[in-house]
Amino acid sequence: MSYPGKHPDFIVHSTSPLNGGTPPEVLRESFITRQENLYIRNHGNIPQVEPKLFRLKVEGLVEHPLNLTLDSLRRDFPIKTILATLQCAGNRRSQLMAIRPIPGETPWGAEAVGTAQWTGVSLFDVLQKAGIKPEAKHVAFSGLDEIEKEGRRFQFGGSIPIQKALQPEVLLAFEINGEALPPAHGYPLRLVVPGFIGARSVKWLTRLTLQAQSSTNYYQAKAYRLFPPETRHENVVWERGMELGEFPVNTVICRPVDGARLPAGRVTIQGYALAGGGRSVERVDLSTDGGQTWQAAELGKDRDPWTWRFWEAEVELEPGRNEVVARGWDSAANTQPEEASRIWNFKGYMNNAWHRVTVLCPDRE
Amino acid sequence: MSYPGKHPDFIVHSTSPLNGGTPPEVLRESFITRQENLYIRNHGNIPQVEPKLFRLKVEGLVEHPLNLTLDSLRRDFPIKTILATLQCAGNRRSQLMAIRPIPGETPWGAEAVGTAQWTGVSLFDVLQKAGIKPEAKHVAFSGLDEIEKEGRRFQFGGSIPIQKALQPEVLLAFEINGEALPPAHGYPLRLVVPGFIGARSVKWLTRLTLQAQSSTNYYQAKAYRLFPPETRHENVVWERGMELGEFPVNTVICRPVDGARLPAGRVTIQGYALAGGGRSVERVDLSTDGGQTWQAAELGKDRDPWTWRFWEAEVELEPGRNEVVARGWDSAANTQPEEASRIWNFKGYMNNAWHRVTVLCPDRE
Repeated sequence: MSYPGKHPDFIVHSTSPLNGGTPPEVLRESFITRQENLYIRNHGNIPQVEPKLFRLKVEGLVEHPLNLTLDSLRRDFPIKTILATLQCAGNRRSQLMAIRPIPGETPWGAEAVGTAQWTGVSLFDVLQKAGIKPEAKHVAFSGLDEIEKEGRRFQFGGSIPIQKALQPEVLLAFEINGEALPPAHGYPLRLVVPGFIGARSVKWLTRLTLQAQSSTNYYQAKAYRLFPPETRHENVVWERGMELGEFPVNTVICRPVDGARLPAGRVTIQGYALAGGGRSVERVDLSTDGGQTWQAAELGKDRDPWTWRFWEAEVELEPGRNEVVARGWDSAANTQPEEASRIWNFKGYMNNAWHRVTVLCPDRE
Repeated sequence: MSYPGKHPDFIVHSTSPLNGGTPPEVLRESFITRQENLYIRNHGNIPQVEPKLFRLKVEGLVEHPLNLTLDSLRRDFPIKTILATLQCAGNRRSQLMAIRPIPGETPWGAEAVGTAQWTGVSLFDVLQKAGIKPEAKHVAFSGLDEIEKEGRRFQFGGSIPIQKALQPEVLLAFEINGEALPPAHGYPLRLVVPGFIGARSVKWLTRLTLQAQSSTNYYQAKAYRLFPPETRHENVVWERGMELGEFPVNTVICRPVDGARLPAGRVTIQGYALAGGGRSVERVDLSTDGGQTWQAAELGKDRDPWTWRFWEAEVELEPGRNEVVARGWDSAANTQPEEASRIWNFKGYMNNAWHRVTVLCPDRE
């Protein structure tokens, strides 16, 4: 199934809500992801917005509540551009689903990730203008989409801690890669929270509420929380889940693809790696013997605290079946867990287990 | 072997240089580690310092080089107190040594860690007074100790990135737990860099140098770097190692101790966990079946971004041999690697593999 404006290989996981992405072997072609390749993760409809009627409200624990038009955002605040990789907390969920079913969640491969140049205004500047009261500890946000869930209709929302909200990398963006945001990516305005799970980069952003507690929206209070492996829908205590924010270090082999058939001998492996919270990817290790021995990959020169890092490595493949394994290390010496089965969780978030692809090398005659 | 001023159970790994610590089951007794229990990690002698002659030099890429007495430090800058856990990058090295020998390095168990209240002045305030030139990207430091290594005599040193140096938690400390620093802990002045490996908290601090590159001192340029598992002394390319800074999430079972004999049934397990870079420990999981199933531990109420977190859990032990396993999760959803063998490195740093203790429960008659 193809989707208008997207790459012919774009995988549509669902159309209502719209969820899809371009396979990682295509994503790996360019450091900045072309719009046609950028994943879409929606929970509700794509709202049609009349730009003249659009307002961004800033309220809650502020000195001066604001009600901003798109024109005033562009006119009254400095325009900024940043490069940032967004990644869904459900990226690589399909590997967890293969271990034990995760009903009702999108079966993402490693395509729920992408890097773009975002242009907009700094959340910091807008909050400064509103005046932050000292009791404000979180910035909650909501979009214009409408979601049906648990018998209620509501807008997608969530929150980030005030310390993150005040960092210069957090943007209210109206452009992606130099073009206006398309409707599926949040036209006319979205949040971009680099280093955090994609769910916090809320689209069709219409309201910012400064408050003492984190958001009570379903997507902060229940979904996008990390639960111990034993938790199920039947026994979950929602408030005991970890609220997700920064994502952990993750590494994906993009080429060759899983199941590829190649001649034995030297083969170039290529992939992406990224680390949350502004930490940098410092090393990527490759193994062809299930992690017994490793070699370091070559890291791409492009480096930015908020973007992924491309890497490649030459490995020697034997005739027969080869399992190629990759894992990364971030600047805080965090590395990735070995077995996805050990980090399985019933919502299927944050799978950063070693990435493995099987390459079949036919025996020579 | 006992050491003056230290707990009777203090383990002395070496006396020249002095290296030792108190077993984790004793450390677990108090959230703030008593001085007699705090580990000592030295690379050279313990210098005898005449406080009247002591000077701290601040030089390099600064507007106004400083030459400060202890009196001027106390008099001209605001006095601050912080609570911070220090942890040696070699904590838990003995587990790596059991996999493959690591000659010439201290065989730390899980005792190279401790939490203290540190009093001193902010590094930020001192750097502000010196005036930071824009080219300064690192703050290098050196102590008054003398080390013999590779045929040279030099002082212990290292560096931290300027962004970290400007954070309010980094202190030039002259007191520990309300008392003057004892000689073994850095009298009269030491750096305290919370969230970073202990090696950056240099003792007998005498010189701060602002510079464009990180330190060329042996302990930054060669030691305290993380190398891939295949690297050995024979083939190491020092500059390819990751310079260590923030430490990753780590969890230790303090009680019962490894090899303990206890009746089968419900047993309370207690331990510590800590995460680097100001990240918080959000969950500790316990398993008694090698990681197949897990239960969440109860986390202590004390929370501070720069300190460890105590935890405890009740588990059910079977008659016979029980392996109790612990792993932690930090606020960036980083968790710990399963197998120490997969993260072995020839200097033996940053072992945060799942912690395992064996408890023997005699069969009932």
